[in-house]
Amino acid sequence: MDKFAIIVAGGSGTRMGAPVPKQYLEIGGRPILMHTLEKFHEADRGTELILVIPSSDFGLWDKLCNEFAFGIEHRIISGGNSRFQSVKNGLNAIPTNEGLVAIHDGVRPFVSEEVINESFERAEEFGSAIAVIPVKDSLRKLTDNGKSFFQERQYFRLVQTPQTFQVSKIKKAFEVQELHHFTDDATVYEHQGWQVHLISGNPENIKITTPEDIEYASFLIEKRFF
Amino acid sequence: MDKFAIIVAGGSGTRMGAPVPKQYLEIGGRPILMHTLEKFHEADRGTELILVIPSSDFGLWDKLCNEFAFGIEHRIISGGNSRFQSVKNGLNAIPTNEGLVAIHDGVRPFVSEEVINESFERAEEFGSAIAVIPVKDSLRKLTDNGKSFFQERQYFRLVQTPQTFQVSKIKKAFEVQELHHFTDDATVYEHQGWQVHLISGNPENIKITTPEDIEYASFLIEKRFF
Repeated sequence: MDKFAIIVAGGSGTRMGAPVPKQYLEIGGRPILMHTLEKFHEADRGTELILVIPSSDFGLWDKLCNEFAFGIEHRIISGGNSRFQSVKNGLNAIPTNEGLVAIHDGVRPFVSEEVINESFERAEEFGSAIAVIPVKDSLRKLTDNGKSFFQERQYFRLVQTPQTFQVSKIKKAFEVQELHHFTDDATVYEHQGWQVHLISGNPENIKITTPEDIEYASFLIEKRFF
Repeated sequence: MDKFAIIVAGGSGTRMGAPVPKQYLEIGGRPILMHTLEKFHEADRGTELILVIPSSDFGLWDKLCNEFAFGIEHRIISGGNSRFQSVKNGLNAIPTNEGLVAIHDGVRPFVSEEVINESFERAEEFGSAIAVIPVKDSLRKLTDNGKSFFQERQYFRLVQTPQTFQVSKIKKAFEVQELHHFTDDATVYEHQGWQVHLISGNPENIKITTPEDIEYASFLIEKRFF
């Protein structure tokens, strides 16, 4: 069974006005993206890695790979104007309709190898496997007239990545026009009328989006990985 | 205007089987509860502090206060068999029907003084003020038949504490029999048919419930408070 992983770090690349896009910032002595790629490589060395970054970053990434002597083989694909377009570019780079593909945020380096492997296994069985975690706090839903109502939190899940699919199905799903509510790959998949299959993610698999997240990520690396 | 704060760390006190209940664990060199009490004291030194802990912990708490030379004045009230009962015991210790009361989880030491003061101001105006934060991740809702559906996350809020109320109203609300869906004080309040007023909480105001939370709390303390 062919296995692919699309690591998405596309988009404009300069959000938040940081001098260097956050996927290239160092935690534990190496750029975040290298940690993420390594996780998928370590989970199964046969997985073909496809990294999606803005084409304007190709030079920077090449330089970083040399500087850090990054030896894990991967292909580099140009990102699009949205996450949807970036993922679509990654899917178009897969030369087959067979096998499975995990789609994963480049700035989630703390995904566990167990979750990666579980996502491939369940996607093979069910067509898709979406990593989710429970909601720890109480939850309220707002209404348009300014009121809010208590929600039973046990019926809700927070969505992470990886979101893993059978290649043939997710390629077909991405043939549609991009819609506003396509906030992740699961929503694209279910637009076909297909039901997604949920699996348990690991809670520390945070998406690094703020300076505080970078600090926390450095802390996690320090405490647990080195 | 009289101001009270009920800091709730009641319940069995030995959840998760830890040798010492987590509210007494040290972060930044002092038990978590001392940080929490200090936040309300610093926000307004006129606030009367009411700490609700299991009566079996009274000796331990007294010992800790001596050991850490904890000088902030507070009353100690015995907790009940549930959060609802513990809060009710705290409310019964308020000798008036005037004024405002903030109800706050003992294991949320990172509430900001701005949020505390805002909660008192809004509760005076609206009857209640519930601290909430936006949902950062995508959200899905589970159905009873094993399916799940995408939710527009902008309509949802994660509920924290403080939950601050006019004393007369929250005392009346707590006169009812405890119900299963009373997961916080807001749900008790709205059971009267009253609408709660939401305010913006501070995102780092986490509830410390797991060993990972303790680690994160130590990180926050190290980086920002010392």
